[in-house]
Amino acid sequence: MYEVELSDDGQIVTLISDAGARTRFHAIWLRDNAWDDQTRSAGNGQRLIALRDIPVELRVESARIGASKLSLEFQPEAKSVDYDLDWLMEHRYDNDHGRTAGWLAPEIEVWDSGLMSAVPVADFNRAGTDGGVLRDWLFQVRKFGFAKMVGGPVEAEGLLKVAALFGYVRETNYGKYFEVRTEVNPTNLAYTGLGLQAHTDNPYRDPVPTLQILYCLENSAEGGENMVVDGFAAALRLKAENPAWFDVLSNHCARFEYAGEKGVRLRSRRPMIELSADGELTGVRFNNRSTAAITDVPFEEMDTYYAAYRRFGEIIDDTAMEVTFKLNPGECFIVDNTRVLHARKGYSGAGSRWLQGCYADKDGLLSTLASLEAQLPEAVE
Amino acid sequence: MYEVELSDDGQIVTLISDAGARTRFHAIWLRDNAWDDQTRSAGNGQRLIALRDIPVELRVESARIGASKLSLEFQPEAKSVDYDLDWLMEHRYDNDHGRTAGWLAPEIEVWDSGLMSAVPVADFNRAGTDGGVLRDWLFQVRKFGFAKMVGGPVEAEGLLKVAALFGYVRETNYGKYFEVRTEVNPTNLAYTGLGLQAHTDNPYRDPVPTLQILYCLENSAEGGENMVVDGFAAALRLKAENPAWFDVLSNHCARFEYAGEKGVRLRSRRPMIELSADGELTGVRFNNRSTAAITDVPFEEMDTYYAAYRRFGEIIDDTAMEVTFKLNPGECFIVDNTRVLHARKGYSGAGSRWLQGCYADKDGLLSTLASLEAQLPEAVE
Repeated sequence: MYEVELSDDGQIVTLISDAGARTRFHAIWLRDNAWDDQTRSAGNGQRLIALRDIPVELRVESARIGASKLSLEFQPEAKSVDYDLDWLMEHRYDNDHGRTAGWLAPEIEVWDSGLMSAVPVADFNRAGTDGGVLRDWLFQVRKFGFAKMVGGPVEAEGLLKVAALFGYVRETNYGKYFEVRTEVNPTNLAYTGLGLQAHTDNPYRDPVPTLQILYCLENSAEGGENMVVDGFAAALRLKAENPAWFDVLSNHCARFEYAGEKGVRLRSRRPMIELSADGELTGVRFNNRSTAAITDVPFEEMDTYYAAYRRFGEIIDDTAMEVTFKLNPGECFIVDNTRVLHARKGYSGAGSRWLQGCYADKDGLLSTLASLEAQLPEAVE
Repeated sequence: MYEVELSDDGQIVTLISDAGARTRFHAIWLRDNAWDDQTRSAGNGQRLIALRDIPVELRVESARIGASKLSLEFQPEAKSVDYDLDWLMEHRYDNDHGRTAGWLAPEIEVWDSGLMSAVPVADFNRAGTDGGVLRDWLFQVRKFGFAKMVGGPVEAEGLLKVAALFGYVRETNYGKYFEVRTEVNPTNLAYTGLGLQAHTDNPYRDPVPTLQILYCLENSAEGGENMVVDGFAAALRLKAENPAWFDVLSNHCARFEYAGEKGVRLRSRRPMIELSADGELTGVRFNNRSTAAITDVPFEEMDTYYAAYRRFGEIIDDTAMEVTFKLNPGECFIVDNTRVLHARKGYSGAGSRWLQGCYADKDGLLSTLASLEAQLPEAVE
């Protein structure tokens, strides 16, 4: 149960819990977030008014509280609106956000090589037929930024069927999907037998592809194991070791470039460690092959920048951070390409290695997950 | 002509111009940016080494300078590398970046209703056959975040041919493209005859689609004019009027949401005015219909936030900011959806209005433009 208090000027509504905790809301915030059917479309939930439709001289004239709802009368509109108390408390903003640079979204859990004993995985056919299995798999992708899928068709374009489980492929100059196998005149070092240091893909692209699927069709060559590293764990380890190094990589933009094929000149200017406006850790970009000359770091900080960049790479290369596996035909893995780096060991000799890769985006994946969570709300863990 | 100076510890190389201007480079930066064919692939330009391959005890042992190149010897690698002096000076970082929050990339020019007399436009057929015409059109899209195209086919999916001129469509839950016309049970208010306040599309999607094309197939209804506003101009006007308002909208994340159709629950957490880590103005999100409850602004700043949000909307609504036009069948416009807002006036009555819309991304557009600029370097203006 709550009590309600209204400020004399009608600008602040305060909910007071039984224990005496006070939660304040502004009149303008409450009015803007009304859910009556003149404010929001009953059909699709979209807001029907703009802020310009709310009078500047807005005030709350009266406030009444019941067991589960708060009723307000707004003037000069003479408008009554009911609010669900649970919704209000879920959306309260009168609290100490208590955030420091590098805070993580609550859905996210960082990991290291310990994840090797519990690699998130689902069966392709089960995920395609059981919403609960798909929900659990997508939940793990959101949580760890990485998951495997097994039991898929051993056929070209199988990876498109995986993408279709949750969203949409992002087509690029590499095609709707691309072949990862040794080529004679490679436009990209990915298309060789070379080992590749752990990296995020296409940092030279803005917007960067936020998901990548790598799907195995043949893998009898010696070597060619895949490896993934949690870039967020690496960034937070860097911060713990030396906060100034975390800051220098997040406060300045690096530059990335790719011009390996005709008609293509991709460039971006983004930090290696990306934070939101309020400090949430939202992205890691790391790719030795396509890092261009870094020119946005002031001379006085370039030494520190390179020291931080070197140490970040060492942390990423530390085997204590990595999860390694070898894909069999019909198996694939997905990474959140804004977070998890992937690598492969060199390969050669007898046998063959043929993977297909594609990009997709997190908006579709997270939307499908949120929708499944609403339909099938039983807890995943 | 330059002279070169090497610091005693071999860590700093200084170029000194005839006029005495000094430009410093760090040994590690120079080594990392070497262009010899052990460092960079001669074929595709990708870096073959990682920072871990450069010794920590790196130093420049000797430096010699010629008319157009700088020759360095690095130890302990005993490695000689030549640098093009023009390349070095173009990529120098020993200068006052002199950037304040909201700085604009040099390719960008802000605009207001004055652009109405010089709307950037190209003919579809000419753009498809003449690289120079396409380059000039893409140049304008980069510069203004907006351009029209005329003379396209009056047929469904014509817009996909426009997208194919420069890049790739971003498929979403709305399809590869979507129909914008009045529907009986609209999942989105876009599919009604309502006027829509100027907005950016899909702010609830992360990554947001960075380009949008709206393509006209029928437009005999009364009303339904289109309008565009430069969100960067609006943001900078807000900053000029009240820097604290610009700061509050750029320092805190808003929230956006869309759940108007089955299986879709899109959400994002991004600021209305987005800056890069070093303050470049990189994005505007503004959409009254899909703004969710804003919960990441501290209580003490919420009043200021709403005052700023209201004023930002007023600036966006100011006719002095807008360029208005009515599309004829076979005409379309493209906007940089991270920058330029679009709106439409309400329509009804006799006649019909049928547009198709699609999303695409700036990476492909800017890559095609950069490639055309390299091939056809004559100046556009």
